[in-house]
Amino acid sequence: MFNFKHIKMKTEIPQISAFPTGEENTGFAQYFTGKSWLAPLTNNKDLNVPLANVIFEPGCRNNWHSHTGGQLLIVVGGAGLYQERGKPAKLLKVGEVIEIAPHVEHWHGATATSWFSHLATNGSPSKNENIWLETVTDEDYDLAHQQIQK
Amino acid sequence: MFNFKHIKMKTEIPQISAFPTGEENTGFAQYFTGKSWLAPLTNNKDLNVPLANVIFEPGCRNNWHSHTGGQLLIVVGGAGLYQERGKPAKLLKVGEVIEIAPHVEHWHGATATSWFSHLATNGSPSKNENIWLETVTDEDYDLAHQQIQK
Repeated sequence: MFNFKHIKMKTEIPQISAFPTGEENTGFAQYFTGKSWLAPLTNNKDLNVPLANVIFEPGCRNNWHSHTGGQLLIVVGGAGLYQERGKPAKLLKVGEVIEIAPHVEHWHGATATSWFSHLATNGSPSKNENIWLETVTDEDYDLAHQQIQK
Repeated sequence: MFNFKHIKMKTEIPQISAFPTGEENTGFAQYFTGKSWLAPLTNNKDLNVPLANVIFEPGCRNNWHSHTGGQLLIVVGGAGLYQERGKPAKLLKVGEVIEIAPHVEHWHGATATSWFSHLATNGSPSKNENIWLETVTDEDYDLAHQQIQK
């Protein structure tokens, strides 16, 4: 009899940009609802602009969080959501750049129906720290979708 | 009689990425062979990751130059060339990221037959200086095309 315990479920990831997909983002999984993938795109520490591609499956978003150095997001595939604490959510489309100031609490992720891919780097990367907070509840995630439809 | 002196020749710029085209890059024109366009994509100085889209018409390339803080290029449209001093040229396609270490002399631009678009930021942006050198001659530009065909 076939032992299903040994079948590793593999999600099929659509090619939504020309940037690499990388590996499943297990290192940060505790701060995400749903699955994401991470591809580091740089390795020269002298240059000090660490850049990575992050891919979110539909429904996936990260927890509320902030960065001591801030963060820059460059949307390269699919459609996503971005929300700062106390503000309505914003729909993110390919070609958009989001500047997140240091210490601003926010979250980002895919929409419920679309894959999403953004490149990301941090301000003051050598000193930056990420401050991870609570999950984005299903209620708040649903509300975000209602806000972008207005 | 129609006075042709008042006709401003306007180049038609194809949409090769979802990022903005910006304005003709007259500020740096003295360091470029051919026409380019520049769209700043950020404005938060606290974040300190200044990002811009640069578009090159076919045949356009910048002079040999270096950056005291280095530079990161993110290819988002068309096809281009990148060459470091003493090395063969490299073909750049959408989805590629080029890390240019501080002080490394190099040039980049479109191929002779394709428009080209890359996003660019610098390492240590608040202190970075660009050191502009000699133009890339037609002979060296032709040679670069021969190198990528090998």
